[in-house]
Amino acid sequence: MEVGQVLHMNAGTGETSYSNNSHLQKKVISMTMPIIEEAMTNLYSSTSPSSLVIADLGCSSGHNSLFVVSELIKIVEKLRQKSGHQSPEIQVLLNDLPGNDFNTIFKSLPSFQKNLSSQLESKDAGPYFFSGVPGSFYGRLFMRKSLHFLHSSYSLHWLSQVPEQIENNKRNIYMASTSPPNVPKAYHSQFQRDFSTFLKCRAEEMVTGGRMVLTFMGRKSEDPTKKDGSNSMWELLAMALNDMLSKGLINEEKMDSFNIPHYTPSLSEVKSEIVEEGSFSIDRLEFSEINRSTYYKEYNHSNISEIAANSIRAVAESLLVSHFGDGIIEKVFSRYKEILSEHISQDQILLGITNLIISMTKK
Amino acid sequence: MEVGQVLHMNAGTGETSYSNNSHLQKKVISMTMPIIEEAMTNLYSSTSPSSLVIADLGCSSGHNSLFVVSELIKIVEKLRQKSGHQSPEIQVLLNDLPGNDFNTIFKSLPSFQKNLSSQLESKDAGPYFFSGVPGSFYGRLFMRKSLHFLHSSYSLHWLSQVPEQIENNKRNIYMASTSPPNVPKAYHSQFQRDFSTFLKCRAEEMVTGGRMVLTFMGRKSEDPTKKDGSNSMWELLAMALNDMLSKGLINEEKMDSFNIPHYTPSLSEVKSEIVEEGSFSIDRLEFSEINRSTYYKEYNHSNISEIAANSIRAVAESLLVSHFGDGIIEKVFSRYKEILSEHISQDQILLGITNLIISMTKK
Repeated sequence: MEVGQVLHMNAGTGETSYSNNSHLQKKVISMTMPIIEEAMTNLYSSTSPSSLVIADLGCSSGHNSLFVVSELIKIVEKLRQKSGHQSPEIQVLLNDLPGNDFNTIFKSLPSFQKNLSSQLESKDAGPYFFSGVPGSFYGRLFMRKSLHFLHSSYSLHWLSQVPEQIENNKRNIYMASTSPPNVPKAYHSQFQRDFSTFLKCRAEEMVTGGRMVLTFMGRKSEDPTKKDGSNSMWELLAMALNDMLSKGLINEEKMDSFNIPHYTPSLSEVKSEIVEEGSFSIDRLEFSEINRSTYYKEYNHSNISEIAANSIRAVAESLLVSHFGDGIIEKVFSRYKEILSEHISQDQILLGITNLIISMTKK
Repeated sequence: MEVGQVLHMNAGTGETSYSNNSHLQKKVISMTMPIIEEAMTNLYSSTSPSSLVIADLGCSSGHNSLFVVSELIKIVEKLRQKSGHQSPEIQVLLNDLPGNDFNTIFKSLPSFQKNLSSQLESKDAGPYFFSGVPGSFYGRLFMRKSLHFLHSSYSLHWLSQVPEQIENNKRNIYMASTSPPNVPKAYHSQFQRDFSTFLKCRAEEMVTGGRMVLTFMGRKSEDPTKKDGSNSMWELLAMALNDMLSKGLINEEKMDSFNIPHYTPSLSEVKSEIVEEGSFSIDRLEFSEINRSTYYKEYNHSNISEIAANSIRAVAESLLVSHFGDGIIEKVFSRYKEILSEHISQDQILLGITNLIISMTKK
């Protein structure tokens, strides 16, 4: 599976679209906002730039990226008014893989820009320029020393590929408690390679003093197979797929060769890669947790299993379709919904989701 | 009609897509290539840049833009090898309106980049970075002094809006020989406003010494209503629409309020705007002509009227749908095909198409 060619969040604005099923991601961004604000404040205060290039990596087609962008622009505008400087020209670079639905986000830009202007009190704010940058962030995306501020939320837990030599991870689709020991090891190695490549590329692209805020799903325990809120959803999806196998709807070879290219690192794993790569100093490295049950209550929807199933469908459908074909998708998610519903009483899907937030400065 | 919100070439890669119906545009680009090559050669030779930003304005979803980009990259690579310099980092900015189908062009980028690498002999060429920039080129699109080379082909004959106060252009959808005198005047004024805005914006965005090559449909005669190959297609489309009117499929008010936001300037009209704006020196300002009958013969298709109808449909469908709804589109183009077929014998649609090519340097 060529993850870079295959993976994309569900396109458009329909029922199973990422756009309509990324409330959790929005919630995470809101929780992270004070750290994003702090990083931008420090950047602006130390440089008062006349032009500012901001990138969001893994923007997808949803409004979450634009929400962050509008908050960043408002912070800059407030700071520059306070300092009496001219408003900087701001370039916003929205990145995702080439299969992402950029059309949806581009079509929403004119009204976004109109709203933003009306929210900014000053008439001489801006101008703001928007670009879409298709490509994997596990490679170079931007010109040398061209970025001032980089944000990425809920993207870096996706690996560049399924780890190699984990053919023995039968019936599982992820690191599970029943996975052989080489499986979590292979996942960890893949994360190390990917994250250090990510840091190397960004180090080339960022100006000295540039800031980067990354948020991704992580884990508290040093044991990657320990069940928590971040991986339990994949284990339940594996159950749905195994049901398809037992009904003869997918074959054994297909089942055994499917694994999710997703990894939730621990805080120490993240820290050691940043220290080893050496181009960034760490300003903050923190946990935050979302309690799923509180989150779902806030969301105020009667059918929790439906929300949860759709949120996984919105992010994982492209991977499933590319491996199994699109014939079984409705059945898989219908079964997944039932399984989620059965497990809600056991509080299994209501475990907290751990997020890691890292704020760094380019040395 | 909000042209910037409405106009887009037909999306995707299907039968009526722009991608499959832009052979004429490709032919025009090939004819212009020596001038593009000259401009890039002069730019590189005078600056030997370590980074180079190239923009294509009006890229649409087709391969034509990427063809130009690959030629430009090959020219730069040849020059830098000859000069012994390091390969510059190249940033390619692909611009079109927000409704453009960027997804199709983005999805084609991985294989385009692979092909390009295999065509370049040197392994240390590049890196090349691609972005999509959604927005109207009748406004600012890029950061101040950020562009080195700008190309735009077959885009600047589209106006930013339908000229105002031409309600009396009844039954016509364009400047026609039967249009009242205020109509060509209003079209010309709109062109002047738009083209000078275009030049002003680009003047801010380009570096001193930067080059710009523009190609658009133009006309030889100073009389804009004189029938030639560039406007005859619209007159025949007006006939198809008037047939819809006579059959009661569209109403009179709708017919009379529809006009195509398209203008084919004369050489002197273009020149006077550039001189007046004052930021660019003209290196070349030339006519070229495509003989439609030769072009269609080369294209080797049995049904000329079908090719011609599809090529207009690929560019004008979005405007027609936004004004008349999509219910009549199949009928309009079926009738248009018949009309084209009837007129082929009269050589009316086989008139030559005049193109203007301008090569400029930013002062």
